[in-house]
Amino acid sequence: MTETAPQNGELDVLCVGNAIVDVLSQTDDATIEELGMVKGTMALIDAEQAEALYARMAPGVETSGGSAGNTAAGLASLDARCAFVGRVRDDQLGDIFTHDIRSIGVEYATPAATDGPPTARCLILITPDAQRTMNTFLGASVNLGPEDIDEAQVARAKVTYLEGYLWDRDEAKEAFLAAAGFAAKHDRLVSLSLSDPFCVDRHRDSFRDFVSGHVDVLFANEDEITSLYQVPDFDAALQHVREDCRIAALTRSEKGAVVVSGDEVHVIDAQPVDKVVDTTGAGDQFAAGFLYGLTAGRDLAACARIGGIAAAEVIAHVGPRPRVKLADLVAGKLDG
Amino acid sequence: MTETAPQNGELDVLCVGNAIVDVLSQTDDATIEELGMVKGTMALIDAEQAEALYARMAPGVETSGGSAGNTAAGLASLDARCAFVGRVRDDQLGDIFTHDIRSIGVEYATPAATDGPPTARCLILITPDAQRTMNTFLGASVNLGPEDIDEAQVARAKVTYLEGYLWDRDEAKEAFLAAAGFAAKHDRLVSLSLSDPFCVDRHRDSFRDFVSGHVDVLFANEDEITSLYQVPDFDAALQHVREDCRIAALTRSEKGAVVVSGDEVHVIDAQPVDKVVDTTGAGDQFAAGFLYGLTAGRDLAACARIGGIAAAEVIAHVGPRPRVKLADLVAGKLDG
Repeated sequence: MTETAPQNGELDVLCVGNAIVDVLSQTDDATIEELGMVKGTMALIDAEQAEALYARMAPGVETSGGSAGNTAAGLASLDARCAFVGRVRDDQLGDIFTHDIRSIGVEYATPAATDGPPTARCLILITPDAQRTMNTFLGASVNLGPEDIDEAQVARAKVTYLEGYLWDRDEAKEAFLAAAGFAAKHDRLVSLSLSDPFCVDRHRDSFRDFVSGHVDVLFANEDEITSLYQVPDFDAALQHVREDCRIAALTRSEKGAVVVSGDEVHVIDAQPVDKVVDTTGAGDQFAAGFLYGLTAGRDLAACARIGGIAAAEVIAHVGPRPRVKLADLVAGKLDG
Repeated sequence: MTETAPQNGELDVLCVGNAIVDVLSQTDDATIEELGMVKGTMALIDAEQAEALYARMAPGVETSGGSAGNTAAGLASLDARCAFVGRVRDDQLGDIFTHDIRSIGVEYATPAATDGPPTARCLILITPDAQRTMNTFLGASVNLGPEDIDEAQVARAKVTYLEGYLWDRDEAKEAFLAAAGFAAKHDRLVSLSLSDPFCVDRHRDSFRDFVSGHVDVLFANEDEITSLYQVPDFDAALQHVREDCRIAALTRSEKGAVVVSGDEVHVIDAQPVDKVVDTTGAGDQFAAGFLYGLTAGRDLAACARIGGIAAAEVIAHVGPRPRVKLADLVAGKLDG
């Protein structure tokens, strides 16, 4: 069952992010409102808030998550060569995270912290409309710093992919900037996901500087990209982003995706889904599919279609990582 | 979302068992064979074996389990008043177990162990035929002893329900015998699940003594009951068990269930299921439905039908506890 993770040789994608175990639990709209949460977004919480919220939650299911970790899992399921950098603690949830990502063949060597806060967890409330509302206790993932970024590993990867959530901690942001610096030095691509509209709000100026200065491939949804440029609609954002980075892949939920690259624009329909069960991980899997296509030399429209296929798989079940072999699914759907 | 657990007053059922967090992961028949496992059964493993097996497993999903714990969850979902006794360690998996069982309104007061082995886990491999093969590291649950059984709590419960798996450890077995003793003293019913054919093999003589001497309501499947009496077929076992205990509820997977009580025999068809996904927890939920019916004063045929409805719900999804409110499901199916 276990595949051996590659320890050297070229990588398609190096994913850097928060190493998080998700706790998924069902709830209703009234509870989301009563708890003062904004549906569909991510809020940061501290240990005390995490404990209080957990006590109020219905029974949960625990599963490895984290935005870039989910993307790494999607890439592995597509048979891309992939590595992950992110920090857990040496505790039970850390063991779970480490087991899961290694067992799918993702290279993962960041040492577990031996003191400090426990492994990060994200308390995810799923409402009947399949939306997920996330509350993240960053825990040990805050220990990720620039010293965890290995220049040689970045140099081995065609793309270094960074989740915007890292921007929430100075140390992790430095890790992020170090990775981008090494990628540039070795003529490798840098990709960024904006992660969440509130995350963009918290860091708008520095995100804009980073996107225009360093990002080759940007992922964002409608809320995130309009927030980044503080424009009222998607089309206005599109005009901005095409100036700022080489490729922007913008997702619009059931309206599909738009990919812009200079003068090139592709509008791709969403993949049909019988029943949307849990949207956790949709953006992460879109990025996985897109980056798989890109590193395999596919054209941008095909990249977006593969992203759509991967996203459609993950929203049809509970949990943020693929349940089926995405490589088979894509082969069947794309060429069938 | 949280309901308040009752702390006194009458209980319908007190469930005593191993407090276990399940790790569920998909695999194929070849791997089960290669690992030397017997499909559909439970094997006990030590910490080292647990680590080695976990390293070989595909990514998993963690969720609270344990046979009697699952039954308690089913009873709570049926709005029965219920308590659970079983031991975790004060670690992350222990927190998960404790959170989940309390959050559904089950009274749970066994203190977590502060030293010794970690919280028990069961590594469950699900094959494409929906069968589950279980490997249990008993961990902290071995710390359960007779001192954890509260006579007053047993006296409050109409039925004290014991999982046969406890028989694997002397201390836990003593807890089990203490509970049965208190129940008898207070004119309360004792119920036992035989749990697993190999568990019966390991303890046949003492199980037979206990069943004939103390058990009012026995749960077993075909393999377990034929193993208990060492007879070649189900009908022969039926003749034995009707002499031994007041009520025996015998499950036969897709062939439904047979309930015997003295001269009374009821044959109940299985509930139809669109697609069997994971049989983990089927027997536990049958017991929950049956005991709910019994403590609500339903006749034996109705008890078995409710058991069948609860079992059908749990095998249609991954995970050993109900995903929907069983009280609503039963109201719709039984009286509709």
